[in-house]
Amino acid sequence: MFVAVIGSATCSDEVASLAREVGREIARRGAVLVCGGRGGVMEAACQGAKEAGGTTVGILPGTERQEANPYVNVPVVTSLGEARNAIVVRTADTVIAVSGGYGTLSEIGLALKMGRSVVGLGTWELCRGGQPTQDIVRAATPAEAVDLALARAGRGRS
Amino acid sequence: MFVAVIGSATCSDEVASLAREVGREIARRGAVLVCGGRGGVMEAACQGAKEAGGTTVGILPGTERQEANPYVNVPVVTSLGEARNAIVVRTADTVIAVSGGYGTLSEIGLALKMGRSVVGLGTWELCRGGQPTQDIVRAATPAEAVDLALARAGRGRS
Amino acid sequence: MFVAVIGSATCSDEVASLAREVGREIARRGAVLVCGGRGGVMEAACQGAKEAGGTTVGILPGTERQEANPYVNVPVVTSLGEARNAIVVRTADTVIAVSGGYGTLSEIGLALKMGRSVVGLGTWELCRGGQPTQDIVRAATPAEAVDLALARAGRGRS
Amino acid sequence: MFVAVIGSATCSDEVASLAREVGREIARRGAVLVCGGRGGVMEAACQGAKEAGGTTVGILPGTERQEANPYVNVPVVTSLGEARNAIVVRTADTVIAVSGGYGTLSEIGLALKMGRSVVGLGTWELCRGGQPTQDIVRAATPAEAVDLALARAGRGRS
Repeated sequence: MFVAVIGSATCSDEVASLAREVGREIARRGAVLVCGGRGGVMEAACQGAKEAGGTTVGILPGTERQEANPYVNVPVVTSLGEARNAIVVRTADTVIAVSGGYGTLSEIGLALKMGRSVVGLGTWELCRGGQPTQDIVRAATPAEAVDLALARAGRGRS
Repeated sequence: MFVAVIGSATCSDEVASLAREVGREIARRGAVLVCGGRGGVMEAACQGAKEAGGTTVGILPGTERQEANPYVNVPVVTSLGEARNAIVVRTADTVIAVSGGYGTLSEIGLALKMGRSVVGLGTWELCRGGQPTQDIVRAATPAEAVDLALARAGRGRS
Repeated sequence: MFVAVIGSATCSDEVASLAREVGREIARRGAVLVCGGRGGVMEAACQGAKEAGGTTVGILPGTERQEANPYVNVPVVTSLGEARNAIVVRTADTVIAVSGGYGTLSEIGLALKMGRSVVGLGTWELCRGGQPTQDIVRAATPAEAVDLALARAGRGRS
Repeated sequence: MFVAVIGSATCSDEVASLAREVGREIARRGAVLVCGGRGGVMEAACQGAKEAGGTTVGILPGTERQEANPYVNVPVVTSLGEARNAIVVRTADTVIAVSGGYGTLSEIGLALKMGRSVVGLGTWELCRGGQPTQDIVRAATPAEAVDLALARAGRGRS
């Protein structure tokens, strides 16, 4: 099972703490963590996964492996810029968004388009016509986020 | 000036009518229309642009030029799948979203990440912590959408 | 009909002269020129096509439209780096290589893989087991190159 | 150290045997094997690497992880088609070509363009003006190929 953790390359300590716990929970359940390979949420999640003995894959946007955070086991150097976001979510069975900015928003859209479930921890909320949509499954804690993500993995893939 | 029109590959007649008028307005102002090259909103926008004597560029996701709608002048065959969304918005100076689904949501995120303004006509609404954000500029009519988009083109590019 | 002209971003005056004539011949036959949008062979070919009243499409590797040479009508900004080479050849019906370096070699391989014919003017020669292969159709002049390319366009596409 | 092994998705038993030994030698030296993740040379190389206790990364062209051969540890699902070839060589420090067809030729060009050394075992030979070039370092055996590749890794990167 491959779980993507998406979020910003810079983040607060509080958000990093959540991401780290998400990473730990992913590794504890034996899943591989996939991310964009950079700092912030990505680094914290990779650190957590490594602490729990897990494996981490970083799909990097630039041209150099050195761009990867120190907790990435398998750095994939795409040189695709933002287009690499599609590979992060395509490679995963399910996606967890931790806070996040515009890049994260694009990954949420891509994941939903590809039929991956998206579980959110304090991330974007989507509305249409003034009403919230149910596209993102909300979680209250890192452990719940990972539980929800794994339970939904592989549903409705396109 | 290059203006991207983003929206779903299938849409209602009402949405198609809006997209067609957006395309016409883009061409009337001498701008080139960029889109994903397929049906629905993309086709209606291209049709409108052609009716007004404009030029249309279609950045296709698949492997065949025949995938383009009949109003695309310049079909670019990427074979990148959803990753081509990044090229649509990168190629444009400014972006107009007409209704739209998950793919459109991903393009909104990518456009904002790249510093392009996004003007919305009946599209996604973004919130954080229960409050609407100001990331998408709302327009009430196709003409207003194109006015707002052109006025914001090139601002804050990254 | 879309014809790709591939070659280096820097080249001698002699090679530029050949590329310019290739561009002119493409436009004279009413075909659209597709290229990587940059300098050298690409710029000379675009210049020739414009002189003959043609249309030119530049599939750029970087993040900025300003990277395009001044004779590109339709700049497509991919931000994909070398991965954009696949789009250049996929977008074309047939490919003409004018001299060229390693990037050109990669485009020759991609074109042949996709079933496009490759016509060569002073470009790479391919051998296996010490014997020349017939993969690249050799032309002696720009006019002959364009004739051969157009005659083979669309054959054996994959 | 990351070593790419490139070659066709279908191959003779003799070529598969060479690729398998290349994979074994890569793993024996503690390097990670990167490849396109599919059959033929890629599968044989992954099998060899796994037999020697190594790690294998497969950068897949399609939309499904199931496309990977059974010896891939880390399947990266790009959905980029042939454009994924650029990621295979960008992710590696050095490249070994075992026989191979047009896709392999494109990867040789991309690798040389990016400043990676290419070591060849019975692969394409490049000529200009009727003379062989020295772009591809020829090896006589799998062990020699891996020795040469590792000795050249990281030289002249761009």
